[in-house]
Amino acid sequence: MLIGLFCSVLGLALGFYGSEKIFSEKTLPVPAGASEQLQQGIRQAGLPSVATRKLLVPRTEDQWRTAARLHADNQPESIAQLSARLAVDHQPDVMNGVAVHWLQPGTADPDRRLFVYLHDGAYVFGAGEAGISEAVVIAARTGLLTVAIDYRMPPDHPHPAALEDVEAVYRGLLRSRKASQLAMGGTSAGGGLTLAAMHHLKGLGLPLPGALFLGTPWADLSKTGDTLHTLEGVDRILVTYEGLLAEASLLYAAGVDLQDPLLSPVYGDFVGFPPAYLVTGTRDLFLSDTARVHRKFRAAGIEADLNVYEGLSHAEYKFIEGSREHDAIYGELKAFLSRHLR
Amino acid sequence: MLIGLFCSVLGLALGFYGSEKIFSEKTLPVPAGASEQLQQGIRQAGLPSVATRKLLVPRTEDQWRTAARLHADNQPESIAQLSARLAVDHQPDVMNGVAVHWLQPGTADPDRRLFVYLHDGAYVFGAGEAGISEAVVIAARTGLLTVAIDYRMPPDHPHPAALEDVEAVYRGLLRSRKASQLAMGGTSAGGGLTLAAMHHLKGLGLPLPGALFLGTPWADLSKTGDTLHTLEGVDRILVTYEGLLAEASLLYAAGVDLQDPLLSPVYGDFVGFPPAYLVTGTRDLFLSDTARVHRKFRAAGIEADLNVYEGLSHAEYKFIEGSREHDAIYGELKAFLSRHLR
Repeated sequence: MLIGLFCSVLGLALGFYGSEKIFSEKTLPVPAGASEQLQQGIRQAGLPSVATRKLLVPRTEDQWRTAARLHADNQPESIAQLSARLAVDHQPDVMNGVAVHWLQPGTADPDRRLFVYLHDGAYVFGAGEAGISEAVVIAARTGLLTVAIDYRMPPDHPHPAALEDVEAVYRGLLRSRKASQLAMGGTSAGGGLTLAAMHHLKGLGLPLPGALFLGTPWADLSKTGDTLHTLEGVDRILVTYEGLLAEASLLYAAGVDLQDPLLSPVYGDFVGFPPAYLVTGTRDLFLSDTARVHRKFRAAGIEADLNVYEGLSHAEYKFIEGSREHDAIYGELKAFLSRHLR
Repeated sequence: MLIGLFCSVLGLALGFYGSEKIFSEKTLPVPAGASEQLQQGIRQAGLPSVATRKLLVPRTEDQWRTAARLHADNQPESIAQLSARLAVDHQPDVMNGVAVHWLQPGTADPDRRLFVYLHDGAYVFGAGEAGISEAVVIAARTGLLTVAIDYRMPPDHPHPAALEDVEAVYRGLLRSRKASQLAMGGTSAGGGLTLAAMHHLKGLGLPLPGALFLGTPWADLSKTGDTLHTLEGVDRILVTYEGLLAEASLLYAAGVDLQDPLLSPVYGDFVGFPPAYLVTGTRDLFLSDTARVHRKFRAAGIEADLNVYEGLSHAEYKFIEGSREHDAIYGELKAFLSRHLR
């Protein structure tokens, strides 16, 4: 029961099937413009209850730790299985005191280009192997050697621990590579942390990476995006900002102003940022965050490529391997990185 | 009263203020990420009633003609005033038997580049000067000589009359210019007709323009887009697809299959299409149409630049001259055309 509740709260693949529907087929049809695979998932699942989601939030530090353990224990496929299936070699390591995971694809590039992956999980979930499934996919699909940073998280290590860990690994990588050979990115909190890291590294005067991947980035922790409201109850992964996300942001911020650009990077100055490839969907609670970030890049005169997928909820592309959407996103990411890393 | 109703149906600037609210400030806040000007418009207007909009539809051919006349009579500013204010010279003309409007900006390019404008109005409204206000803006903001095609429309001239008129003018322009010097585009039905024209001209073996402007294009007349459902009652310009849009599409199609690519161009093959600049908003009923069209370009390997504006309803950028959104959209369009027309 507890596992079921938490899985539902966390929007895991395991959890979001079988929830009750709040829209009938008539008022919110399955989007005919989505792939067959995505349509089937939506058809089977229906839409979850907003009211239920709002209530299911860890309250104490122990409950947060329990929730994170449950999240980790309920991954649909182990990293060993996934990396074997995608022919990616997986090696845990420590770099400048920070835990990392090396993901070396079978078809690895001979050159020095490298993808720095920051995982998702609302800044609380996804420690260890629970946070690197997308990194395995990125390594396999882009052909780039990938290093996933297992950054420290609350409740034990709130902001700015994650940024300090990203900085430490980044400095380590710069000893053997040029910044222009590095890409950085991730999905959700991973996309938000990538943008926050740009502000942080820029402030330190370090050279920035050659390109970014921003998958539906959580770029504003202050609950400001329009689609947080218009798509509440429509996004079947996040469902609502109230509850889990709102509380996780407070846990992560640990008293710092939620609109500080190191927490909500959309409020910072994007001048000097690298080109970015952005992905979201028409049912994504973070469609507004993604679109607003895109506008910030463009207003700063920086190339940014926004892609919106029909019917897709937040980060749902991660869960539909083999679909048209999954193939397009990681295929275009590969092409984007090929153009920009040198 | 009749004027008020029809203006409301048509989503004119005159009409959409003062409608009743169906969401309270609490459940759907004014988007803080939008410009002050857009926020103010949203705050003043609230959201209109879906139920009322669904009912307000012309039924007979005479009612459609009356509605079109009312639309034309209720433009917020005359073309004479607007073109004087923006220093654009306006000359009506006839080309290959089709009525057109030449719009020559004071700062006109000395070269042969030209923008071919197709107006909006659900394929029924916007005849004559009622359809060219955005063409005046485009001429002024891009500095390009612009020709707006006053294509024939139902009830007297349904599909394919509009496409025949676009073809006739396009053939005329090709006598004095290279296709690569021409841009084509428009908003809403104008964006949809632009895409349909690409299928049509490609089928004729004619060279296609050098670049396209697709402002929230009505690219699917078969009511398939996800956001037609998820954003119903949120888009304060269109409000709902039921009623006016659904009926206008049937009037325009005149019995032809609504998924014919010449009516719903999203269903056609985009190979060989020119690069496209696309605009939509997080409250746009045609966000899905725009995003799906963007994916079609990208799947065909063609450059396409998708831009989503926070809090913006369908085509609302037309109505907020002087706003950050308006400036960004037409400024970036100018830059896009500069890169692609030669």
